[in-house]
Amino acid sequence: MSLAIIYPNKDVSHWVTALQTQDPALKIEVWPGIEDPDDVLFALCWNHPAGVLQKFPNLKCISSLGAGINHLLNDSTRPLGIPLVRLVDEGLKQSMAEYVMLGALEYFRRFKDYRLQQVKTEWAARQIPHISAPGIGMMGCGEIGSYVADKLADFGFSVHGWRRTPQANEKIRVYSGKEELETFLRQTDILVCLLPLTPETENILNLQTLSQLRPNAYLINVGRGAHLVEADLLSALESGDLSGALLDVFREEPLPQQHPFWTHDKISITPHIASQTNPESAAEQIVENYQRALNSSPLLNLVDVKSGY
Amino acid sequence: MSLAIIYPNKDVSHWVTALQTQDPALKIEVWPGIEDPDDVLFALCWNHPAGVLQKFPNLKCISSLGAGINHLLNDSTRPLGIPLVRLVDEGLKQSMAEYVMLGALEYFRRFKDYRLQQVKTEWAARQIPHISAPGIGMMGCGEIGSYVADKLADFGFSVHGWRRTPQANEKIRVYSGKEELETFLRQTDILVCLLPLTPETENILNLQTLSQLRPNAYLINVGRGAHLVEADLLSALESGDLSGALLDVFREEPLPQQHPFWTHDKISITPHIASQTNPESAAEQIVENYQRALNSSPLLNLVDVKSGY
Repeated sequence: MSLAIIYPNKDVSHWVTALQTQDPALKIEVWPGIEDPDDVLFALCWNHPAGVLQKFPNLKCISSLGAGINHLLNDSTRPLGIPLVRLVDEGLKQSMAEYVMLGALEYFRRFKDYRLQQVKTEWAARQIPHISAPGIGMMGCGEIGSYVADKLADFGFSVHGWRRTPQANEKIRVYSGKEELETFLRQTDILVCLLPLTPETENILNLQTLSQLRPNAYLINVGRGAHLVEADLLSALESGDLSGALLDVFREEPLPQQHPFWTHDKISITPHIASQTNPESAAEQIVENYQRALNSSPLLNLVDVKSGY
Repeated sequence: MSLAIIYPNKDVSHWVTALQTQDPALKIEVWPGIEDPDDVLFALCWNHPAGVLQKFPNLKCISSLGAGINHLLNDSTRPLGIPLVRLVDEGLKQSMAEYVMLGALEYFRRFKDYRLQQVKTEWAARQIPHISAPGIGMMGCGEIGSYVADKLADFGFSVHGWRRTPQANEKIRVYSGKEELETFLRQTDILVCLLPLTPETENILNLQTLSQLRPNAYLINVGRGAHLVEADLLSALESGDLSGALLDVFREEPLPQQHPFWTHDKISITPHIASQTNPESAAEQIVENYQRALNSSPLLNLVDVKSGY
C-alpha cells in the first residue's frame, strides 16, 4: 500500500520529508516513479495529468495538495466514486489571513499613495479614520474565510460576511443567499473574495456587484480568477466605482504578458501566492486521511462534489 | 479657568469639538486667541512657540497633544515645576500597531518584490516561511511598544522586546539594559524602534547595532529621527547587512527635498503618520487630567522629566 504524490514538474522533496517525518512507516511514491500501480491507495495531486488517476485500481482516496479542488472536479477522466478530500491546514489559513490583512492595511493606511508621493519627494500626511470605520466584506465564510474574518476582526477591523447558506458566526454578522447580497455589498469598503468556484459563483464580481459597494471601494480577489469579469473590473476602475484592486488569481495563470492588468496603475498583482500550503503543518491531516482511507473510516475535509466544495 | 490649545498653524476644530463633547461645561481657548492669560489652567501643546508657556501664571498642567514630549522637554523657556503629561490613547496605540503590522507583513510577504516584478511583467512565486520564523525585535516596550508587540504576537509573529529597565511581559520575552542589547539584536529579523528619545537612546540605530541583526534584516523606525545615524543606515544597506528600511520619522521634518533617503530604492518613506492621535478617543483623558489638575489630584500619564519619558 502506498501514497502517491502527483505534482508534475515540481520538486516535492519537502512534501516527502514532511510526510515521512509524520509517519516513518508510510510508503511514499512520487509520480511518475510508481513501482506498482496496484499498490497506490491514496493520491495526493496538484495539476495532475488527465487520465493518470484511472491507472490505480485500488485507489481509495484522492486528495488535493491545496484548498482548491477545481483541478480535480474539472478532470472528466477522474474515476467517479472515489472520495475527494482537500487540505484545510493552519498554515494555509494563516498565510491567507496575512495576505488579506496586508492588502486591507495597505489600502486603509494609504501606502500606495505614500509610495507615489515618495517618487515625487512629496511630504503630505493623509488623514485616516479609525480602523473600525471601513467595512470589510468577506465573500465566502467557509473554513478559510471565517479564519481570515476573525483575524481581521480581532485586529480591530469591522468585518461582515456573505455565504451561500446561513451559518452562525460568533464574531461577525454573516449574510447569506442572493437575497442578502446587495445588503452585504452596500456596507462594504473592502471586498474580499474567498468563495469556492462553482457555477453559481462564477462571474460574481461584475459591474453590478462592484457598483453596489461603498464609494472608493477596494477589491481583494483571493478566490479564483473566474469569479471576476475582467472587463467589468476595468470599467469599475475607469468610472471610479472602485478605487483599486489587489489580485492574486486570474482566469489564465500565469497572467499573459500582454494582459492589461499588468500595467494598470490601480491594480496590484501577485502570482497566486496568497495562501501557501505548509508541508509541515499539512502532513498530519494527510497521514490521518491515509489511515482513515485504509480503514474505511470517515475522511477529514471531504469534498461535497455536488456543491463543488 | 480654561484649557488652551496651542498648536500653531493647524486647524484644531476637531479637537475643540471632541473636548467640548466630552465636557460641555469646559472653557476651551485656542492660542493665540486667549482672552485672559490668568485664566489658563491647562495647556495642550504641539509645536508651541518658545516662551508662550511663561505667559500663563496660573498654569497647573502642560499636556502634549501626542505621545511624544521632546518638543516640551527641549523648550528651555518652559516653566519648571509645572507637571508634564502626555497622551496615551487607544487610537494612538492602535494606529501604531497597524503601521508596524503593515510594514512587517510587507517585508515578510515580499510585497516590494512583487511590485518590482509587476513592472517587469514577471510571474514568479517566492517561498516564504511560516509567520513564526522571522524574529521581530521591539526596541521600546512602554505603553505603545507593548501594545504593538502584543498585537503582532497575537497575529502569529514571534516577537521579543528590549527596554531600558526590566519589566515582566506575559506574552513576549523582554530583554533589558545595555548588557542584553546584543542578545536581543542577534535574534532579530525585523527591528522596530519605538523608543523614547533620550540622551541614552539617541543614535542607538547605528552601524554596530544594525550589523548585529540577522542577515537580510529590515528596519522600521517609528521612534524619532534622532535614534538613527543616517549615514550608518546607508552603509548598512550598501553592505547588505540590512535589506531595507521603512522610515516614518527623520532628523529634519519634513524630510529635505535633496535628502538621499527619498530616492533610495531600499528605503520606504512615510511623512510621520504611523501613529495618529484620535481626538475622539483622546478627549476623555485630557478632560480627566484637566479635572485632576483643577483638584490637585494625581495626574494620568505623568512624564518623568528626569528619565525623559
